[in-house]
Amino acid sequence: MLTVYLAGPEVFLPDAIEVGERKKRLCSAYGFEGIFPLDNEIVPKASSERIDRLIYRANEAMIRRAHFGICNLTPFRGVSADPGTVFEVGMLAGLGKRVFAYTNVAPDYFDRTKRTEALAFDSGQKLWRDTHGMTVEDFGNADNLMIDWAVAERGGYPIVRHDARPMEIDRDLTGFERCLRLAAEAFARPA
Amino acid sequence: MLTVYLAGPEVFLPDAIEVGERKKRLCSAYGFEGIFPLDNEIVPKASSERIDRLIYRANEAMIRRAHFGICNLTPFRGVSADPGTVFEVGMLAGLGKRVFAYTNVAPDYFDRTKRTEALAFDSGQKLWRDTHGMTVEDFGNADNLMIDWAVAERGGYPIVRHDARPMEIDRDLTGFERCLRLAAEAFARPA
Repeated sequence: MLTVYLAGPEVFLPDAIEVGERKKRLCSAYGFEGIFPLDNEIVPKASSERIDRLIYRANEAMIRRAHFGICNLTPFRGVSADPGTVFEVGMLAGLGKRVFAYTNVAPDYFDRTKRTEALAFDSGQKLWRDTHGMTVEDFGNADNLMIDWAVAERGGYPIVRHDARPMEIDRDLTGFERCLRLAAEAFARPA
Repeated sequence: MLTVYLAGPEVFLPDAIEVGERKKRLCSAYGFEGIFPLDNEIVPKASSERIDRLIYRANEAMIRRAHFGICNLTPFRGVSADPGTVFEVGMLAGLGKRVFAYTNVAPDYFDRTKRTEALAFDSGQKLWRDTHGMTVEDFGNADNLMIDWAVAERGGYPIVRHDARPMEIDRDLTGFERCLRLAAEAFARPA
C-alpha cells in the first residue's frame, strides 16, 4: 500500500488530531495509508533535548518514508501558504517524490496580494510592485511560482483550488479529496 | 570551485541584478562561485510557453547544479520568509545539499507574530493561539521549526540573525557574508 505524507497547517489547530484522523480515513477509502505529523508522539529522552528538533527529525523521517505527499497550501498568517508546508513541498520535490496540493482559497496570488496592500504599476518594466518596490508575481498562480510549478511538475496536476466557506477554511477537505482522486489516477497510470 | 545557489527575495527588487552581482563578488572573495536565479535569461521559444514554468525549470536546474545554498530568510509580505526561498531550502535539503541561511530581522518568530496579531494563551495546553485558534510556535526560532532545523541540520549552523537598519532590510549583506564564512569553515573541515 502506498503511503502519503499529509502536510498542512491543520497541525496547529486545537482539533488537529481529529482533522488528521478524517484525512487518514479518506486516504484509506482511496487505497492509501495516510501519515500525519502528529502520529509521532514526541517524548524527549533528556531535559536537554529540544522538542522542536525532535519534531523536525520525526517529520523528515515520515517524509522520507512516504511514497508521495498531499499538501494543504491554504494561505496561513498572510498572503502565502504555511512555510512549514512549503518547506515540505520542497523536500518532497528534492527527494523525487510526487506532490499533490490544494488550497481552500481560490483567488490567485496576485489578487490576494492586491487586497492586502497598495500596489503600484511599473510602466517601464510592465509589472506590479509592492510598497517595498518588490515585484508581485502575476502569472495566475495560487502562490509563488516555484510552489505551483513544483506541484505541477512533480504531481502532474496544478494545485487544486477550492473556495471553502470562511468558517471551514482550516478544515474543509473537498480539495484534499480531489488530490486523493488525482493521486489514485496518477499511480494507476503506467509510469 | 564549489558553486553556491543564492536564494532570496531580492530577485523581486528593481535593482535585483545589482544585488546579485554584489553577492557573487562576495562569493568569489570566499573562493566560491555564486549562481543567482537572474543569471538565466528566460526567453520563451514559442508564444505558448509559459515564462513562469521556464523560470521554475531554470531555477531547479541551478539548484541541482549547486553544491550548496545560501538562503535569505528575511520576512517577506508577512511574518515569514519568502515562500519561494522556503521551497528552495526544502529542495536543497531533499537533495542532500548543505544549506546556510540568514535573516535581516533578528527578533524571533513568536515575537514578530505577537506584534502583528492578538494572541491568546491557552492555559490548558500551555501554548499561544492566534485568531484562528492556531498554535503559534514559541521555540525561539527565526521561522517555522522545519526551516530553522533544516538549516541547522543541513548546514551545521543556526540561521544567522542580523538586525539590519529598516532602509537596508532588503539589501544588507552582513548576514550573507557571515554565511559565506560559515560555509568556508564547514567545507574546510573533513566530512
